[in-house]
Amino acid sequence: MEADYFISLEKEPLGHSVALEEVLNKLQFNEQGLIPAIAQQQSTGEVLMLAWMNRESIEETLKRGQVCYWSRSRQALWFKGESSGNVQQLIEMRIDCDGDTILCLVDQSGPACHTNRPNCFYLSVDDKRVVINSKPVNS
Amino acid sequence: MEADYFISLEKEPLGHSVALEEVLNKLQFNEQGLIPAIAQQQSTGEVLMLAWMNRESIEETLKRGQVCYWSRSRQALWFKGESSGNVQQLIEMRIDCDGDTILCLVDQSGPACHTNRPNCFYLSVDDKRVVINSKPVNS
Repeated sequence: MEADYFISLEKEPLGHSVALEEVLNKLQFNEQGLIPAIAQQQSTGEVLMLAWMNRESIEETLKRGQVCYWSRSRQALWFKGESSGNVQQLIEMRIDCDGDTILCLVDQSGPACHTNRPNCFYLSVDDKRVVINSKPVNS
Repeated sequence: MEADYFISLEKEPLGHSVALEEVLNKLQFNEQGLIPAIAQQQSTGEVLMLAWMNRESIEETLKRGQVCYWSRSRQALWFKGESSGNVQQLIEMRIDCDGDTILCLVDQSGPACHTNRPNCFYLSVDDKRVVINSKPVNS
């Protein structure tokens, strides 16, 4: 079972390594073959967005050094920034303890959000209201 | 459609607010009624973990001011830190541009990860290997 694989890794020492291929084979993709991927600006810690990856987009991301997601609406590889130029240079990819989430430390060019805001989390809960907390860049 | 609701919010000005209840009604939960929730340490920007919330766990989180997830394995509310004491004090909850991801800025007590590491992302991809990048706290 995939979960057991990650349990077996927990006790290994700092610096212990295993083959990437082996870990990719054990990732816990959902029924659509997808896994959530968080993009975080490495220099500031800002959480930019969450999108989804399939096995192929993970491999494309690692190969190109630029983040590639799977677009659920288009059902196609989504090379982030392909049309907007707002690419995410990959600094480091991390995997979580259950093998069911990916964290990409990136260097984001331009705004990460399709609304032209720096990041996608522009709605803040404040008491019983939800407040717009940022504006689109250059507007 | 839920997505249209969030598109309509995009053009509203900074500081514009809507009722929380209205937004919660429009959140894009998946087929299991769940939405991914990222926990980030507010003071440092460290991404601690990703887990899942249903409507009830969102409401519990806001009511208690401590993060509550939905445990998919136990199919029950998961009051984070209930048994370990490693609670996540909620500083601010944010929602993304599509209404399909939640970001919780928190103050984490103790390690966030069940492996006793500070955060769950302890596996770093390095070339063709995956390397253990941190050790459990106090061990």
